[in-house]
Formats: sequence, C-alpha cells, structure tokens
Amino acid sequence: MKLLKISHIGIASPTLQEAMERLERIFGIKHEHTEEVADQKVRTAFYPIGESTLEYLESTDPESAIGKFLEKKGPGIHHLAFEVDDVDAAVRELLDKGVQMIDKTPRSGAHGNRIAFIHPKETGGVLIEICQPSSGH
Amino acid sequence: MKLLKISHIGIASPTLQEAMERLERIFGIKHEHTEEVADQKVRTAFYPIGESTLEYLESTDPESAIGKFLEKKGPGIHHLAFEVDDVDAAVRELLDKGVQMIDKTPRSGAHGNRIAFIHPKETGGVLIEICQPSSGH
Repeated sequence: MKLLKISHIGIASPTLQEAMERLERIFGIKHEHTEEVADQKVRTAFYPIGESTLEYLESTDPESAIGKFLEKKGPGIHHLAFEVDDVDAAVRELLDKGVQMIDKTPRSGAHGNRIAFIHPKETGGVLIEICQPSSGH
Repeated sequence: MKLLKISHIGIASPTLQEAMERLERIFGIKHEHTEEVADQKVRTAFYPIGESTLEYLESTDPESAIGKFLEKKGPGIHHLAFEVDDVDAAVRELLDKGVQMIDKTPRSGAHGNRIAFIHPKETGGVLIEICQPSSGH
C-alpha cells in the first residue's frame, strides 16, 4: 500500500454554523460545499487546502460516532484520512498483517469515496481512515 | 493571508520508537529524519505524505507542552499547521482582527520554519499553527 496524500482531516464541531463563522473570520475561507452522509449521521462542510481538505463534521444524531465523540471529548480533530490507490487491496494487506480494523471491508463515505477505518488502538490514539476516491473524482 | 497547504500534522507520542515501529508495521513507511527542537523540548520524527508531513513528537521534558499534553490527554493529534507565504504579515493580520494568539510574533520551529500558534479557544478545540518554510526549504 502506498499512502498518496492526506485526503482529509475530519474535525468534530458542535455546529457547522459555528465552524463556518470561525473559519471565515480567522482565515477568510469559505466552505466548498456541504454534504449529509446519512450512513454516518453527519453533515459535513468541506474546506480544500492545497491537495487536502478540512472536513468539519456536525452530528445529526447524538448516538452517532461524532455525537458520542463530541459528548466525550468535545470539539476537535476526529480522524485523519490517507488516500490510497486501491482501498480493497489495502484493507486485505492490513488484515493479513493482523492489523485490527473497524471496517473489514470498505464502505461508502462522503464524495462517494470508498473508505475503511483502522482501529485506533493500532495507531496510537489517532483514528485513521484509508480511502480511495470515486472514479472521476 | 492565503493557506497554501497543510504543512504538517503534529502527533504526540509517548516514545518515537513506539510510533516508528507502528508506522513501519502498519503502513511500511520509515521516517525521513529526526530532529530535536530544544526550544520546545521535543524530539520529532518526520513522515512525508504527499505535500504534507506527519510529525511525531516525543517530549524530552515532562514540563514541556507535549509532555503536559500527553499527561492530560494521552497520545494523539496535538496540532495542525498551515503553510502561509508570509507568516509575519499573517500574524499581524490575525492580531488586527482581534484573534487571540499564543505567539504574537513568529518564532523558530523544526526545519528552521518560522511559526506562530493561534490560541485554541479561537479554533474550536484544534491547536493551529501557521508557518512559513525557511528559504530554500
């Protein structure tokens, strides 16, 4: 597996509105678009910076992963995502090595990406996602 | 101020050795080099990924910022750094806007970068650094 780039950094925020106002005030940047990922019960605002993107995440359900994260840890960086060229092969490679995965097979994420999370106990307290862009993205 | 790219992501780790073994086992990647930043009482291992770098940070003094972070929060992402073309102008712009800064004037970081931290209360629980590479870097 080759890590091609940092695809995005997922940042949990109590409300997207608050994050948007802050980013515009401090850095003068606006989100590219927002998206609801029903699967994960989040609404996301995207801020491209160089080849990567900041993804601000607002929970649409207190029982979602982001809702629980916010309740337990407060706002802040939730996960880091690395782009790979073949996420299926990457997940197989990790499972073969005995790396504990949250997702044993890739699933759909924002932007139609295919994604898989590595268990954070493997990665020193950092939740890491590997992802492959949808073709044509 | 224009945010050019995500310069690096600083990740606090109890020991660099542990982080290095983990990254090699899981992703098959090795650090580019290590560096001690005496000022900040840290030792750093650098992992370039695309145009960004993961910087694993080990404290050389329990009283350092990273030492205290590890004690309070455990291992994980400590800060996010955005590259700007003129960090002096960026800091002036932020101060003019009334943004609370940890560093009111830029100081030296790893790689000879000039850096300044924004106060995390401004940025929703994410510690953000702005930095300008040393010329020739």
